[in-house]
Amino acid sequence: MSKLKLFGDPISGNCLKAKWTAEYLRADIEWIPLDILNGDTRRDDFLAVNPFGQIPAAVLPDGRVITQSNAIMTYLAENFGGSLLPQDPYERAQVFQWLFWEQNSHEPYIAGRRFRKAYKKLADEEIDSEWLPRGYAALALMERTLLDNDFLVGITLTLADIAVVAYTRVAHEGGFDLSDYPGVRRWITRVERQLDIKPVGNA
Amino acid sequence: MSKLKLFGDPISGNCLKAKWTAEYLRADIEWIPLDILNGDTRRDDFLAVNPFGQIPAAVLPDGRVITQSNAIMTYLAENFGGSLLPQDPYERAQVFQWLFWEQNSHEPYIAGRRFRKAYKKLADEEIDSEWLPRGYAALALMERTLLDNDFLVGITLTLADIAVVAYTRVAHEGGFDLSDYPGVRRWITRVERQLDIKPVGNA
Repeated sequence: MSKLKLFGDPISGNCLKAKWTAEYLRADIEWIPLDILNGDTRRDDFLAVNPFGQIPAAVLPDGRVITQSNAIMTYLAENFGGSLLPQDPYERAQVFQWLFWEQNSHEPYIAGRRFRKAYKKLADEEIDSEWLPRGYAALALMERTLLDNDFLVGITLTLADIAVVAYTRVAHEGGFDLSDYPGVRRWITRVERQLDIKPVGNA
Repeated sequence: MSKLKLFGDPISGNCLKAKWTAEYLRADIEWIPLDILNGDTRRDDFLAVNPFGQIPAAVLPDGRVITQSNAIMTYLAENFGGSLLPQDPYERAQVFQWLFWEQNSHEPYIAGRRFRKAYKKLADEEIDSEWLPRGYAALALMERTLLDNDFLVGITLTLADIAVVAYTRVAHEGGFDLSDYPGVRRWITRVERQLDIKPVGNA
């Protein structure tokens, strides 16, 4: 029987968070690793599957495609059981709040700096100088919640934690120092344990 | 009886899209207009309601706050009836795909240029030169869908249309010319009519 196929590159936090969600839910899907830097997402065989050439991409058994990491995670949470997306209307809204915030206020700066420093090998002066303070502002906002709470929403792991941890745990690769964010560091360890993923030494 | 209060500034597409969603759903809420440029979101009375000082902000009758425009829209769609968020799992995923895409691939460039040109009165040279081509790439991606479809997802209005139309209809204020995007222009008119909002002349 045909399964949902999830195409992604393990260097991409956006891809990993979809993969981790599927694994946490023990969803019976097929993970297909691609190498972005090697041009895999520009090859005809992948473009035949997803004309937009983006990853992560979830391809349903009938060929229909879902893109956008957080939309894929939401789809998995709503269709493969589990409680990563709470039923309580307010907690549910909080999860979506963090998911949208991650894409507009966290990922552009924290993942953006990491990609430019760790993969494109750019120097600090070649990276938009606004990104460092904006990334720290995102970490400070997380710290406000995580100093007194084990998880971003409610008292258990949700999609919010998986989405936000993906690039936070590798923030040091983008030049962010987490020393002053003890709540964030403890939370990284906690979420990595829940997801059974190997620490990268940022916590 | 206490109602949900929606705080927002009518110059902000992110605020308007939450307001339009509530109006379309005939949700019995209270709209409280603030003036960002006049500092209303930095005043103590608003900060007492929402310590993060962001708008749009939805404040539930018990005082709990939801921020992030698209999270507020999702909350309204899930709790005030209507069919702006489809039940079909794939269409639902498509709506979320557009909502996340709007925040990471459309709003930063199209709303970003509009704010800098129309409100901060900056010259083109003072605005990141990547934003114009990225905004046009977003419009081109929409055109691919809208040339042959009345709405972004399925055959009726959804949250996706409301979220994406908010800044697309005022894209000309950011220097974007929609002449080459006839599908987008027809869709703007269609969505404005459905939402019963006054055209701004971009279509």
